[in-house]
Amino acid sequence: MNVSIIVAAGSGTRFGADRPKQFLEIGGKPLLIHTLEKFENCAAIDEIILILSENEIEKFQTTLEKFQISKPTKIIAGGKTRAESVRNGLTSLDKNSVEIIAVHDGARPFVSSEEIAKTIETAHEIGAVCLVAPVFDTIKQVSGGKIVGTIDRDKLRRALTPQTFRFAILQTAFSDENFDAAATDECFLVEKAGFEIGFVDGSAKNIKITTREDFALAENLLKD
Amino acid sequence: MNVSIIVAAGSGTRFGADRPKQFLEIGGKPLLIHTLEKFENCAAIDEIILILSENEIEKFQTTLEKFQISKPTKIIAGGKTRAESVRNGLTSLDKNSVEIIAVHDGARPFVSSEEIAKTIETAHEIGAVCLVAPVFDTIKQVSGGKIVGTIDRDKLRRALTPQTFRFAILQTAFSDENFDAAATDECFLVEKAGFEIGFVDGSAKNIKITTREDFALAENLLKD
Repeated sequence: MNVSIIVAAGSGTRFGADRPKQFLEIGGKPLLIHTLEKFENCAAIDEIILILSENEIEKFQTTLEKFQISKPTKIIAGGKTRAESVRNGLTSLDKNSVEIIAVHDGARPFVSSEEIAKTIETAHEIGAVCLVAPVFDTIKQVSGGKIVGTIDRDKLRRALTPQTFRFAILQTAFSDENFDAAATDECFLVEKAGFEIGFVDGSAKNIKITTREDFALAENLLKD
Repeated sequence: MNVSIIVAAGSGTRFGADRPKQFLEIGGKPLLIHTLEKFENCAAIDEIILILSENEIEKFQTTLEKFQISKPTKIIAGGKTRAESVRNGLTSLDKNSVEIIAVHDGARPFVSSEEIAKTIETAHEIGAVCLVAPVFDTIKQVSGGKIVGTIDRDKLRRALTPQTFRFAILQTAFSDENFDAAATDECFLVEKAGFEIGFVDGSAKNIKITTREDFALAENLLKD
């Protein structure tokens, strides 16, 4: 069985709106519903574990019914950090039935069902995979208030999500020995645990919506 | 004297429009005019050297007059690459009167006059400076088709422009010995020539407009 853990427990304080950004509407639907639809419509995904803030869980059940999203089998309360939220999702899973886990940011609605399926296929083959996009900016290394070098951007990628893994690999990466609550993504913990990770080239459209500017951009992307 | 070299000789083929993107209108003015206004209104800038494609030079003279942009003293034809275009601008300058050069992308209209002035002030003090923004994405190093590590994003910055230098430093960096026509920014050549470079924190709003999505985002940023 292939399961997706979708993380949407953020409080969205950077955004400055009444509610966390994942619940704001865009094109007539909450942002998170756009994201969930991509997994709902991806045949390779059997179940969704949705991670929300404790106080959003009941409200969102109604929203899921309204928009006919049926794959989420569990809604689980998030932790203090992203990594803790994902760990809460992992511990809820049955190790006998789950083969592959695709972890995705709730605030990335522009992933495609094809990209999700491709990461799952690749994780079945090689165990661990990250969806990535090219780096367009010139990236400088800094140290002690100075620029100390330029990194060849052909040797860099931006980590997107899903980040998709064999369940056993992710369990090892999230074990007490390897866990780091401050990890910004799952691959970091999987790297730290010593596993090799492949990558799948994804679209730069798959942005994470964090700021008001991102939200405006998302409205434009939705029109295309 | 503080001079700005503004590079706008790109053919904009990535954009897929009739004319290069810097001449497309946004909020009733060509994109490049928005950029030029920031330098026109920055008291620290004495002159502008504008780099355009050969076939745009005559047409754009009329546009400059229409929008009352008076600081460009020369319009010079660009080279095959960005670095060659900047070199064309540099060789046109009088080494006896110019102290500081601020090199800027014509496709970055959201720089502020304050940011320009701050890079000039810093270049007077330390010789070489880059305007930068934080890296928000998780950045992975790749090699041989695999992810080989995560780079701590606190140790990285995105290079924006202006990149501002004492004239003598930039001349050394662009000398035959150090020149590289494929350099994506001026700082790279200045680093290569062995000079220390400082940085000034700039706004993430200072985007480079390259794609249709950037153009849509720019229209939204302009409304704010």
